[in-house]
Amino acid sequence: MKSAEEEIRFLLDQVASGAMEAADAVKSLDVSRLAGILHPIINVSSVQGMPKWTGGITGAAGAATGRAYFSAAALLLARKLAGQRGEPGRSSPCILVLPSTFAGDVSAIAAAAGVLSAQGGYAAHASVVARQYGTVSVVAPDMTITGTKAVLGNLVFSEGDPITLDAPYKGEPSVYRGAAELTEPNIKDSGLFEFLEMARTYINDFRIRANAETPAQAERALSFGADGIGLCRTEHMFFQPDRINIFRELLLSEGAEARQQALEKLRVLQRDDFSRLFKIMAGKPVTIRLLDAPLHEFMPRNGDELAGYVNRGPAASPAAVLARIEALKECNPMLGHRGCRIAVSYPEIYAMQVLAIFEAVYTLGAAENLDIYPEIMVPLIMNASEMKLIAYGKKVTGAEYAGIVDIEEALRDKLKVRPVPYKIGAMIELPAAALGAGEIAGYAGFFSFGANDLTQTTLGLSRDDAAGFLPAYTRRDLLEGNPFKVLDKSVKELITLALDRGRLTRPDLAAGVCGEQGADPATIRFCMEAGMDYVSCSPYAIPAAILAAAQAALDRGSVL
Amino acid sequence: MKSAEEEIRFLLDQVASGAMEAADAVKSLDVSRLAGILHPIINVSSVQGMPKWTGGITGAAGAATGRAYFSAAALLLARKLAGQRGEPGRSSPCILVLPSTFAGDVSAIAAAAGVLSAQGGYAAHASVVARQYGTVSVVAPDMTITGTKAVLGNLVFSEGDPITLDAPYKGEPSVYRGAAELTEPNIKDSGLFEFLEMARTYINDFRIRANAETPAQAERALSFGADGIGLCRTEHMFFQPDRINIFRELLLSEGAEARQQALEKLRVLQRDDFSRLFKIMAGKPVTIRLLDAPLHEFMPRNGDELAGYVNRGPAASPAAVLARIEALKECNPMLGHRGCRIAVSYPEIYAMQVLAIFEAVYTLGAAENLDIYPEIMVPLIMNASEMKLIAYGKKVTGAEYAGIVDIEEALRDKLKVRPVPYKIGAMIELPAAALGAGEIAGYAGFFSFGANDLTQTTLGLSRDDAAGFLPAYTRRDLLEGNPFKVLDKSVKELITLALDRGRLTRPDLAAGVCGEQGADPATIRFCMEAGMDYVSCSPYAIPAAILAAAQAALDRGSVL
Repeated sequence: MKSAEEEIRFLLDQVASGAMEAADAVKSLDVSRLAGILHPIINVSSVQGMPKWTGGITGAAGAATGRAYFSAAALLLARKLAGQRGEPGRSSPCILVLPSTFAGDVSAIAAAAGVLSAQGGYAAHASVVARQYGTVSVVAPDMTITGTKAVLGNLVFSEGDPITLDAPYKGEPSVYRGAAELTEPNIKDSGLFEFLEMARTYINDFRIRANAETPAQAERALSFGADGIGLCRTEHMFFQPDRINIFRELLLSEGAEARQQALEKLRVLQRDDFSRLFKIMAGKPVTIRLLDAPLHEFMPRNGDELAGYVNRGPAASPAAVLARIEALKECNPMLGHRGCRIAVSYPEIYAMQVLAIFEAVYTLGAAENLDIYPEIMVPLIMNASEMKLIAYGKKVTGAEYAGIVDIEEALRDKLKVRPVPYKIGAMIELPAAALGAGEIAGYAGFFSFGANDLTQTTLGLSRDDAAGFLPAYTRRDLLEGNPFKVLDKSVKELITLALDRGRLTRPDLAAGVCGEQGADPATIRFCMEAGMDYVSCSPYAIPAAILAAAQAALDRGSVL
Repeated sequence: MKSAEEEIRFLLDQVASGAMEAADAVKSLDVSRLAGILHPIINVSSVQGMPKWTGGITGAAGAATGRAYFSAAALLLARKLAGQRGEPGRSSPCILVLPSTFAGDVSAIAAAAGVLSAQGGYAAHASVVARQYGTVSVVAPDMTITGTKAVLGNLVFSEGDPITLDAPYKGEPSVYRGAAELTEPNIKDSGLFEFLEMARTYINDFRIRANAETPAQAERALSFGADGIGLCRTEHMFFQPDRINIFRELLLSEGAEARQQALEKLRVLQRDDFSRLFKIMAGKPVTIRLLDAPLHEFMPRNGDELAGYVNRGPAASPAAVLARIEALKECNPMLGHRGCRIAVSYPEIYAMQVLAIFEAVYTLGAAENLDIYPEIMVPLIMNASEMKLIAYGKKVTGAEYAGIVDIEEALRDKLKVRPVPYKIGAMIELPAAALGAGEIAGYAGFFSFGANDLTQTTLGLSRDDAAGFLPAYTRRDLLEGNPFKVLDKSVKELITLALDRGRLTRPDLAAGVCGEQGADPATIRFCMEAGMDYVSCSPYAIPAAILAAAQAALDRGSVL
């Protein structure tokens, strides 16, 4: 069998020589083959005879080899020491090994070559974040970690031991006890970009956007051909080690003044973040999702994190932090105080984020004369009343609540600048929002369907818990595939209905899907058929999404 | 103002004397007044000058006075000691005071005169269970409990101190520091039954059923005029102190044999439970919901409960129990491994319950020649494939899975008895099930809408967490009432759609609502207009539901 690279070269040559139509070449390449170009490949001879376990699922495709670390802190420390010794990242790769990962582990996942976790599934935190950063991820439900030892089938390894992850796009992943030799991909010379350029010509006006928060992600997405950012998760920006403590200050400060100080610091950081993204994406839309995560995700999760926070200086006492952690605990955080519900309770957090966005728009726009297309997205909308309040605040509702348009207008008055057009949109990720889409569209210029959360609520399935019982469903043939990977028909019905109702109110309503299903060929096909404008997926999935969209467009063309 | 009793007497006299039409009398009585007849009333003079706090919400209406206990164990122990001293229940009343209650607290809530909790809301565990048992419930979010002291505004009290709860049907409840004098209701002589008899004549073929698990609840419901049981929650039967340890054995036993032994014990207990309910409800339908609760709710929640389990004899080690607790933990249990998902993973639990039901049906039916109308309800159905497997198992799917009809048939063959007609139904409590109702009705003879869970998933709102942020929604006018008390329009749309799709498949599909909203007059009106057959509510809510249904029927009649 040809390698993916050989196949692409072959197809390009066929087209160049006139032996094959470009459309046929695009149609003939299997989307799953692209993973073989984007990620390192294991040299088979290097793992021969090595202890091996096969099972679980691939959270993010690729191959990685490195030393195992059993906590984010241990991994980040190992990386730091390697840096001090002058070893660059690639020569001191690490694999994060944990029962499951949480918001605070994002930096470690970004720094790691791979993540091996026991709990969750394709849509769990470890998998989603790993795909976002191009880190390999394997979910191995059989793994147990006790103290300093991890056991996975017949593999036993301790912290610091070398392991290897081999996670194919399709089929079961493997874990090896030992270091493998990897062949790094050569994307630039692979013909991939040329092939994607050819594929794009068939897509017409459907767009492939990226989920991206950092400049590196945005640049990578752009290099793969992204048409802008469809999902910038602002909470990921707060989880960075230098920032999470500022956010904690905000949540723990007693007085309004201290809270305001923390908000000021965050505003400046966010403004600069947004400036960088707008600059990289100049000429293309950047969709920024206001804070979505429940507040407890920002609190220290263990003694080390707590000490790290408390010892910083003006911070609160351990008892105060623990009391706040207790107060923020929820029975079902997925159905709890998160998304725009936080803005209803604490308007100042969204107000800070919106101000930071428009400061970036107006100061950067003026200074560098860039084309900026900001889109502000409000997560977890339940009904039109929320959307009206958060988007239009005082202006429309008369309430003492600074909405997005109020904040933009006040800033523009102050800076005396000409308006930059922007959009405000609603994330449709609750069945109630899909059903109420007609009214919500009265206050929203676009809909972004959060397919992951909509799947969770429509099917009543927690993405973090489902991995425990979905295998029995698959075995008994009770579900058509993993609903976090391929949209369930009930979810599709709600999306179609929401789009219909929304466009009855607002015929030019823009719409896209930004869940983890965004890169799935069947989802892309569905989105195109439903009349959506875009999908948004992780940077490494952009090539697959472009190819899938081109194939779907070609298939539709041949049917029409 | 007349007391509720005086008003009912007055209306009955007016009708008897011909001064008023019976229909007008029924229409003129405010449903909320019935609480004043069903529950004790505080003698105002007895609480004058007593330290008082007002706020929070009523979880279950009524008035109660008694000594405060800060744990279920402490309360049950105090009741036991009082019993040993020969004090009957009413003379040694207790109030359970806790941050929030859990499955294991059911016996204490049943034994208590009142529950005062800090977390949750109208649909939280403490409130739901209290209404079920006729216990008064007040939710006071301001309350903090630290060690042996509870602080609620200016009230401070310790374990053993007398407190009084005054929880009106409408308006804010109060808590007093001290014992009040109560006037016990005199239901029998109040004219209530006569009035309800008169109201019933207007309802036609709509039915009011009860949520009932115990013989006492079933008898009370019957005395209030219930048309059968609409919801028998079998997990409540397992939470009783003498049974929960058997269920724990089931979850903790290593071998198939030990598991089978635990199942056998439970089967005998369940069979006798069902026999009693069928006997009390002879001639009326009894809807039994198969196990719905997630398994972790059955595990010990603290050191005392753990010791109580481990010290019983052949049980597991504390480490094994703790490991199982850890394994059963879920991030979002409401969206986790519960309802019929448990039957997909562990078929033997439903198989035991179904066998127990039919053993009760066939042995009791044969012995006493009673009319039994068993209805078996499968909770948390997500799609038709689940329903097909669980209801029809081998017979239809060919799978190695004993479905309800397989088990019934095998037992009947063994006992050589004539079949008793029974129904199998689906609980529609997930948006996916509502959307897929057309297919599900192919395998279900009735739909029971679980309004509580359907509200949680449709709105993405956890009933246990919402109390923390819903007040801000009410203040800003973002929601029409508490969606756990009054159905949201999105939930109503899903219910109507499910009913339409279901009846396209099966025109004689029976349907009812069995959530906590079942007793709400607006919900009853909606159910009647939607063409449902019944609502099911807690025993003490039956009179209000009958009155509300009569009023709705009279209003509809006047419109037609």
